[in-house]
Amino acid sequence: MTAVPTAVGSRLAGDLQDLAGIVDPALPGWSRQAFSSYDIAGRHHAKGLMEAAGMETRIDGAGNVIGVLPGDGTAGGRQIMLGSHTDTVEGGGRFDGIIGVLGAIEVVRLVRESGIRLHHDLVVVVFFNEEVNRFGMICSGSHAFAGVLPQSALALEDDHGTAMGDALLPEAGIDPNAMLDARYDLSKVTAFLELHIEQGPNLENEGVQIGVVETITGISRFTALFSGRQDHAGTTPMDVRADACCAAAGTILAVERIAGDEPTSRGTCGMLTFTPMAVNVVTESAVVQGEFRSDSGTWLRDAEAALTAAANSEAAGRGVTLELDWRATEEPMPMAPRVMDTITQVASEQGLSQARMFSGAGHDSQILAPFTDVGMIFVPSVGGRSHCPEEFTELDDILRGVDVLLGAVLRIDGGA
Amino acid sequence: MTAVPTAVGSRLAGDLQDLAGIVDPALPGWSRQAFSSYDIAGRHHAKGLMEAAGMETRIDGAGNVIGVLPGDGTAGGRQIMLGSHTDTVEGGGRFDGIIGVLGAIEVVRLVRESGIRLHHDLVVVVFFNEEVNRFGMICSGSHAFAGVLPQSALALEDDHGTAMGDALLPEAGIDPNAMLDARYDLSKVTAFLELHIEQGPNLENEGVQIGVVETITGISRFTALFSGRQDHAGTTPMDVRADACCAAAGTILAVERIAGDEPTSRGTCGMLTFTPMAVNVVTESAVVQGEFRSDSGTWLRDAEAALTAAANSEAAGRGVTLELDWRATEEPMPMAPRVMDTITQVASEQGLSQARMFSGAGHDSQILAPFTDVGMIFVPSVGGRSHCPEEFTELDDILRGVDVLLGAVLRIDGGA
Repeated sequence: MTAVPTAVGSRLAGDLQDLAGIVDPALPGWSRQAFSSYDIAGRHHAKGLMEAAGMETRIDGAGNVIGVLPGDGTAGGRQIMLGSHTDTVEGGGRFDGIIGVLGAIEVVRLVRESGIRLHHDLVVVVFFNEEVNRFGMICSGSHAFAGVLPQSALALEDDHGTAMGDALLPEAGIDPNAMLDARYDLSKVTAFLELHIEQGPNLENEGVQIGVVETITGISRFTALFSGRQDHAGTTPMDVRADACCAAAGTILAVERIAGDEPTSRGTCGMLTFTPMAVNVVTESAVVQGEFRSDSGTWLRDAEAALTAAANSEAAGRGVTLELDWRATEEPMPMAPRVMDTITQVASEQGLSQARMFSGAGHDSQILAPFTDVGMIFVPSVGGRSHCPEEFTELDDILRGVDVLLGAVLRIDGGA
Repeated sequence: MTAVPTAVGSRLAGDLQDLAGIVDPALPGWSRQAFSSYDIAGRHHAKGLMEAAGMETRIDGAGNVIGVLPGDGTAGGRQIMLGSHTDTVEGGGRFDGIIGVLGAIEVVRLVRESGIRLHHDLVVVVFFNEEVNRFGMICSGSHAFAGVLPQSALALEDDHGTAMGDALLPEAGIDPNAMLDARYDLSKVTAFLELHIEQGPNLENEGVQIGVVETITGISRFTALFSGRQDHAGTTPMDVRADACCAAAGTILAVERIAGDEPTSRGTCGMLTFTPMAVNVVTESAVVQGEFRSDSGTWLRDAEAALTAAANSEAAGRGVTLELDWRATEEPMPMAPRVMDTITQVASEQGLSQARMFSGAGHDSQILAPFTDVGMIFVPSVGGRSHCPEEFTELDDILRGVDVLLGAVLRIDGGA
């Protein structure tokens, strides 16, 4: 067997820098959002890198860039697939998704340069639009790729009433009908692997080099509308008020309290609007939007029940009425044990510290996981920061992740 | 002594209806806001009613309408003063301030019709702009009338950066320099009386016809800026967050809790803004604005201390920093015991149920109270509603208030 090569730092550093140059100069940080010319340019740049690495490339009906390094034909036409995304949230950063794409292309280069001939075809995919877009949709490209993009997604509207289906062609060059037909035949894929930054602080805090994702988070989102009574803040005694503001505040604290009981549970309220907004008026109505995340569907159901009870209690105790709407619920998605074991073995053989972990963020991997064996490799995020200009991962950590990715490809190709 | 007349219901009902017709048709309810042509028309309408009632009238440099019914000269040039305002908040209503103006004019009519000749000059004032205006100023007219309008008030700006001093002449017909010089010589005023709706539910709930105000509320307002750290709502464990949203929510509940301990204390948070506003992002910063009101300055100082401690604790417990700014503090203003006693005796003689009470709202009376003996007469508000289109007081309740107002004038004129 040929000696296994290791990732080339100068080459990957240059690739990262080149892609970080393809950003919207009018926005803060490193912004390459889906439905922008910068995102189109970013995916075409990755396509060029694939071609330079010797891959056959194409773009499917959903804007996903697909590159193929053919195998030796002895795997019965089966494939090993790697991939992630190059779009960003507003503000950046330079690593989320990106190292999964550039790292996969580096794996292709290393395979070819070292003269290894894989049995499987090695496929690299740059998924269109992983980050939540302005229509409220996430993982548009991977949903279409997996054949699970609902027609209703095209009807989602932005704040100006423009439907996603109407914006796709003019803003992203994607025909919406072709997008609905872009399903890839995942039955021939032996495994899908995604290298990604952790986006949280655990690996750094624990001094661990490689995270092996066990579960991608489930999410339950809610909107709570509290309706009280607008009253004069001076003349209305406390005990006769129906103050929607206080009921909303109590609910925000209940979300925090409920989520505090498990290390893999999260509870966040980031949206709150009052009517009216005046310092001397008792609030008539308040809308809170929040979410729970967990690796356990049972925990999510329990949290939904606990918050429903708490919010009703906060409202009823103040003579306020509540409309509570649970929506956008996604179940936790376990990764394939076989692929997790492979990643763990490879990391151990390479002398790297590794730990099983939970992904609190969503990823393209979770969309593909019902259809093939999926695994994710995490590398540390400095300070746990992500989705901001400060997002950073040390080059050495990325290189370790690429080496594990390559090692896992070789093991799976060998029948692991 | 001439028999004391009683207020004429049909006349007062007509006056209320006429003034309710002078409102901005583009706004909801009964809107006659200061710095609008409708407010100018409203004050001139009241001036016309004064003249029809036989008063000499003028408008001072601050837009206050002053009507005088001369006495018989035996009180040494001393005056009894009545008054309130005709401006409204956006949305209404038809009674707040208005019954104090129309009721005072009805008293003048009754005095004249019954052939009573007062020793004192009877002065009626319609104060300009009692309600909080778009520059954040309250009681502009009575501040100027009492000689306590600070020059700095003219520099207050609205949301578009227009200074109040620049808006006065074009929008209200008031020369700002004349306004600063509009001080009235209150040393010759024996007493000032204001008839007003309660704006709260106490009189109605307790079946009491006349409220005798003991104290007008003190107010302490605060702005709390919580600065945390923006983080990914999925990848950031609960125990390492610095969530400004939760610190703000805890502070809102602390205001409610602190204010709940006394029947005459109020605590309200009506303003809250988050940055950013996104359901899947941990909030970086949150601004809460709120207030305490009480009839006790000591209680207000204690509440300020308690909330300062609570807000700091809510912040520190979450790794969030706090900038807490107390502003716009007004001390509670007691009414004159002599005038309160007079109102109580008159109401008792007229067979009306009456009770001493606290005013949780501010009034022109509190601005004049440091300079003369002031008393306020409250009549019930249906459902305690005010500052809204639904604001309502039964005509019979208003008439009872006018009769008490007249009785108090006669007693004070007689040396009470």
